[in-house]
Amino acid sequence: MIERRRSNARMSHIVQHGGMVYLAGQVADDPSLDFEGQLRQVLDKIDVLLDEAGSSRSKLLSAMIVLVDMADFPRLNAIWEAWVPGGSAPARATIEAKLANPNNRIEICIVAAL
Amino acid sequence: MIERRRSNARMSHIVQHGGMVYLAGQVADDPSLDFEGQLRQVLDKIDVLLDEAGSSRSKLLSAMIVLVDMADFPRLNAIWEAWVPGGSAPARATIEAKLANPNNRIEICIVAAL
Amino acid sequence: MIERRRSNARMSHIVQHGGMVYLAGQVADDPSLDFEGQLRQVLDKIDVLLDEAGSSRSKLLSAMIVLVDMADFPRLNAIWEAWVPGGSAPARATIEAKLANPNNRIEICIVAAL
Repeated sequence: MIERRRSNARMSHIVQHGGMVYLAGQVADDPSLDFEGQLRQVLDKIDVLLDEAGSSRSKLLSAMIVLVDMADFPRLNAIWEAWVPGGSAPARATIEAKLANPNNRIEICIVAAL
Repeated sequence: MIERRRSNARMSHIVQHGGMVYLAGQVADDPSLDFEGQLRQVLDKIDVLLDEAGSSRSKLLSAMIVLVDMADFPRLNAIWEAWVPGGSAPARATIEAKLANPNNRIEICIVAAL
Repeated sequence: MIERRRSNARMSHIVQHGGMVYLAGQVADDPSLDFEGQLRQVLDKIDVLLDEAGSSRSKLLSAMIVLVDMADFPRLNAIWEAWVPGGSAPARATIEAKLANPNNRIEICIVAAL
C-alpha cells in the first residue's frame, strides 16, 4: 500500500511504502534567508514531515543534498552534523546544481525508514 | 530476487526488487524535439516501462527530474501535472544539470511500487 | 532494523535496511589521479563496501553517476561496462555537476540488494 500526505497535483511531500518514507526535495519556504537560515528551515521541515510519517531523523537512510554554491559546503556540514543524531548518519551525497527558485540555496532529498 | 528487463552492458531500464521498480534515467529518443515534445516522449517511455514491470504511473514513489535549463520549469509542470493521476503524485525534486547528449533537455529518474 | 557501518558525524558509508543497502556517494580518495584512475578507485571502494554489507556488484539496483565534466562520459562507459557483471547492470542515470572537492571528477551513488 502507498500512503501519500501533503499531496498536490505536482508532488507529495510524504510518500510511504514498504517500511520506507520518501520526502519530496525540501527547500526553505523563505528564500530571503541567508544560507544558514535556509538550511535550518529545511531541517525543521524535514523533522515535521518525518514525524508526520511516523519516522524521525534517527531513521534516515539516504540524503541527497543539492547546493547552489559549493562554497556553502562547510556551513552545511557544521549545521548538518549538529542535527544528525550521533550514530545515525545516513548515506549522503552532495552536488552543486541550480534550483527552480534562484534564491533557494539548498535542497535536501530524504529517504528514511518508518 | 532481482529482475532486470531491457538490460544492456551499461544499464537496465527496469530493475525490480522487493516490491519496487527502479527505472534508468529516461531521456527522449528523439532529441531534435522541442522541450514539450521531449517531455511527452519521456513520459510515454515511463508509462511503457512501468507497464512492463507491472506498475503504473499511479504507483510512483519518487521522481528526480533533471532539466538542462531551469527556464523549462513552467513547461515541465504543466505537462507533468496533467500526466500524474490525481492524488498519486510522487515525492519530487527538480535540479538543473547537463546531460550526456547536449540536445536532450530533460531526464527523469523514477522509483515506483509494484 | 537499520544497520550503519563506517559512520561518522556526517554520513554512513553503508546503511542497510529492508533487504537493501545504500552507499554514500563515493569519490576517489586520491583526487590527484586522472579520471580513469579516480573511477577505478571509486569502483574498488564500492566493491569493498558492498562486500562488507553482504552484497556485491551483481546486486546493484540503481546507480546515480555525477561527472564534473561530461567529456569523461565515454571513458566512464568503457570502464563501467567492463566492471558491471553481464546481465546485472543497474538502473543508471548520469548528470554533470560540481562536487565538494574540485579535484574529484566523479562521484557514484549506489543502491543495491542484500
